[in-house]
Amino acid sequence: MAAQNARPVAVVVGAGDSTGGAIAKRFARGGYTVCMTRRNLDKLQPLVDEIRAAGGDAHGFASDARNEDEVNALFDDIEGRIGAVEVFVFNIGANVQSSVLEETARKYFKIWEMACFAGFLTARKAARCMAPRGKGTMLFTGATASLRGSANFAAFAGAKAALRALAQSTARELAPRGIHVAHVVIDGAIDTAFIRDNFPERYAQKANDGILNPDHIADQYWMLHMQPRDAWTHELDLRPWMEKF
Amino acid sequence: MAAQNARPVAVVVGAGDSTGGAIAKRFARGGYTVCMTRRNLDKLQPLVDEIRAAGGDAHGFASDARNEDEVNALFDDIEGRIGAVEVFVFNIGANVQSSVLEETARKYFKIWEMACFAGFLTARKAARCMAPRGKGTMLFTGATASLRGSANFAAFAGAKAALRALAQSTARELAPRGIHVAHVVIDGAIDTAFIRDNFPERYAQKANDGILNPDHIADQYWMLHMQPRDAWTHELDLRPWMEKF
Amino acid sequence: MAAQNARPVAVVVGAGDSTGGAIAKRFARGGYTVCMTRRNLDKLQPLVDEIRAAGGDAHGFASDARNEDEVNALFDDIEGRIGAVEVFVFNIGANVQSSVLEETARKYFKIWEMACFAGFLTARKAARCMAPRGKGTMLFTGATASLRGSANFAAFAGAKAALRALAQSTARELAPRGIHVAHVVIDGAIDTAFIRDNFPERYAQKANDGILNPDHIADQYWMLHMQPRDAWTHELDLRPWMEKF
Amino acid sequence: MAAQNARPVAVVVGAGDSTGGAIAKRFARGGYTVCMTRRNLDKLQPLVDEIRAAGGDAHGFASDARNEDEVNALFDDIEGRIGAVEVFVFNIGANVQSSVLEETARKYFKIWEMACFAGFLTARKAARCMAPRGKGTMLFTGATASLRGSANFAAFAGAKAALRALAQSTARELAPRGIHVAHVVIDGAIDTAFIRDNFPERYAQKANDGILNPDHIADQYWMLHMQPRDAWTHELDLRPWMEKF
Repeated sequence: MAAQNARPVAVVVGAGDSTGGAIAKRFARGGYTVCMTRRNLDKLQPLVDEIRAAGGDAHGFASDARNEDEVNALFDDIEGRIGAVEVFVFNIGANVQSSVLEETARKYFKIWEMACFAGFLTARKAARCMAPRGKGTMLFTGATASLRGSANFAAFAGAKAALRALAQSTARELAPRGIHVAHVVIDGAIDTAFIRDNFPERYAQKANDGILNPDHIADQYWMLHMQPRDAWTHELDLRPWMEKF
Repeated sequence: MAAQNARPVAVVVGAGDSTGGAIAKRFARGGYTVCMTRRNLDKLQPLVDEIRAAGGDAHGFASDARNEDEVNALFDDIEGRIGAVEVFVFNIGANVQSSVLEETARKYFKIWEMACFAGFLTARKAARCMAPRGKGTMLFTGATASLRGSANFAAFAGAKAALRALAQSTARELAPRGIHVAHVVIDGAIDTAFIRDNFPERYAQKANDGILNPDHIADQYWMLHMQPRDAWTHELDLRPWMEKF
Repeated sequence: MAAQNARPVAVVVGAGDSTGGAIAKRFARGGYTVCMTRRNLDKLQPLVDEIRAAGGDAHGFASDARNEDEVNALFDDIEGRIGAVEVFVFNIGANVQSSVLEETARKYFKIWEMACFAGFLTARKAARCMAPRGKGTMLFTGATASLRGSANFAAFAGAKAALRALAQSTARELAPRGIHVAHVVIDGAIDTAFIRDNFPERYAQKANDGILNPDHIADQYWMLHMQPRDAWTHELDLRPWMEKF
Repeated sequence: MAAQNARPVAVVVGAGDSTGGAIAKRFARGGYTVCMTRRNLDKLQPLVDEIRAAGGDAHGFASDARNEDEVNALFDDIEGRIGAVEVFVFNIGANVQSSVLEETARKYFKIWEMACFAGFLTARKAARCMAPRGKGTMLFTGATASLRGSANFAAFAGAKAALRALAQSTARELAPRGIHVAHVVIDGAIDTAFIRDNFPERYAQKANDGILNPDHIADQYWMLHMQPRDAWTHELDLRPWMEKF
């Protein structure tokens, strides 16, 4: 049985980047105890501190989401010590483009392992926590590549398409058991250090709202969680007004 | 030039049914002057009265959205007397199933004329109001049939698919000019007199949140309008938790 | 009852352009009596002559596919005088791009009427001929716009999306009754006088197989018709090797 | 440089089941030297013998398509000893349904490894052979699950969706270099021992053409390969006439 906690618990897997961090802050502000994971705990501590300083309740966990035992132990620990997991957010996945001719087997595997297999391991465990209680929200971060295999995107598009299939399959199985599963297709650049450093021209569009503000993404995750069960969204897209699609 | 109005203006085309009415009430509650249309003004008056009694600002208009001149005159009247149209909602469209073998030319045309052609006429005029100001939100009500031509749905699926194409085309043209265009796929029965009277078994699922509450649909239209322009949704689905998809 | 004909009958609605003509020739070569329609009979006669000169059996009909009575009379005439319609091809539909702000109601309607409403009228009548016999093939010509509402394509994309919904709905209703319904998405420029005269740079790619040869499209229609009923295709795309998608 | 062979070479990865075998026979009949792989060579020999007895040229290879080194060595061997690979068919992938709650990490991985990772390894190597020659056809076997994550299909739908993304990405990169890449969505039961033994009611529909004949599937693969490059199909579906979709 889950520990009794004054606040409901949200687990954000992959809280290292700006999006995951913003989502964690949004749920903390909404009254959730936020359990955040990334591989390196040191990098997570400032976020924990920031949430606590704002009056929120947050915990950081070093956890490799690709490791089945670690994942299961993590959720057991959270449920045992902190409380019942009500919200699960999967927010891992990174792309490095390659020609299909040049793509390495190692990278193809690694991209899938992080963006999809880790999603399966963590979603399965979250679902096992939620299903007996008939309650919970599971949110998956998607991308343009979730819907389309563009040239030089074989690995990332494959991983994201598979993650989307996981979200669909989980929704079809668990929605009738009371679990809300949603997939968010983020179709544009996000305001991150990575975009700033690697795509300066694109980043310059920040002044025109041409890249996504992580806090605005986070608001949508919160909105999805707040939807009453007679009107659940399974999938929505998010893109800047000036983005081609 | 549009009249100066203390409140921004939202036009809800097809405010006769429960969904359109709920959307109108939601925008009124949000501070919008709501201009509602349906063919028969008498049926609209109670809704106008209800909104005003709650402190909102509402106007009812008898208008046939399939008539180009009426549509243009309606918007000119609203812009001239009331204020600049900032929000446009298209919410017309009804289905009567038929085998493709039995479908009449008249009904096939009528279903398209109401669910699609009226959408074009009103959306075009709304867009002409909004585009020069570089500001506005256009929201289209879709359905399961927007995405899929099921057996016996040739007319309705055709009209809704064409309306969706209109929403996409308008978004791709006008989003870069500052107009937010979104399409909401409602995939389930809505709590209406029609469902109550014609599908009593389905309606009985209301007790279990098995049909959509129009107020919850309306909340999503409001949410879409509130999205900041760096994170716009073009399409989302809404369905009850127990709905197969 | 249909007339007894030595050859089965294929009706090609819209045999005026190069694609429709190539399809007619392909089915004539395959042993079908080909009944071709377009609004202006004069323009059809050279095609009739060409097919007959090659040993085929062809008939031309002046027929406005948007006129319900004409359409019904046409098929009755063919079935009564010539033979049972076994293949139906709908190949009408033309685009003139417009901004949604500039699109006229008249053009929006006309594009739908030709590309979609005529498809409904002719497909319904063809289906009424075929269904009682539990046999037949219905083929619809689609386009890139069938799947996507691009900027400035509101009218054409709406009409083509609606035609696709018709094909889907008809397939779902009539495939279990033995009628094969397929939709071909042609995603590229076709070798026509229109492309030659209006897009000369594009047309120059003909030398590199960069535009579609109508005879090759026609081969695919024939292939679809030849598929055994345990392995029917409902939709396929066709595009030149160098076409972006 | 590839060996000089009187006949062009087709490689069928996963020729163990009835579909792969039928495809091999079809290309052998079309004049290709067919190189077939499966993990167990013994089971392949009867197929090799059958093709040779019919006057065809066939070679069987024991090869684990999930093993990068084996895959690369296999193609090098074929190109070195037999001839230039002109056709590549990927036909591996099997499903065992599971609730997402019960799915094991091992099975989730194995299903992906076979249906997707092996596809990547073999397709990449085939593409490396073909690209410098600017010529070739790559054909991928898909399924209903390629398009849709149904309940209890998380693993298989993920793997097939990822394989489809690979096919799309490869097509978008290599079609402009002269390689035809196509994905076949098989939406129905195939006439196999597995269906016969496990779904006898379904198998009984064979008498009514209610399940797919592997030879008819193979004809479509051949047809795709034969398409001229101005009219290439990237995706088509195949289903029995009585199959719901």
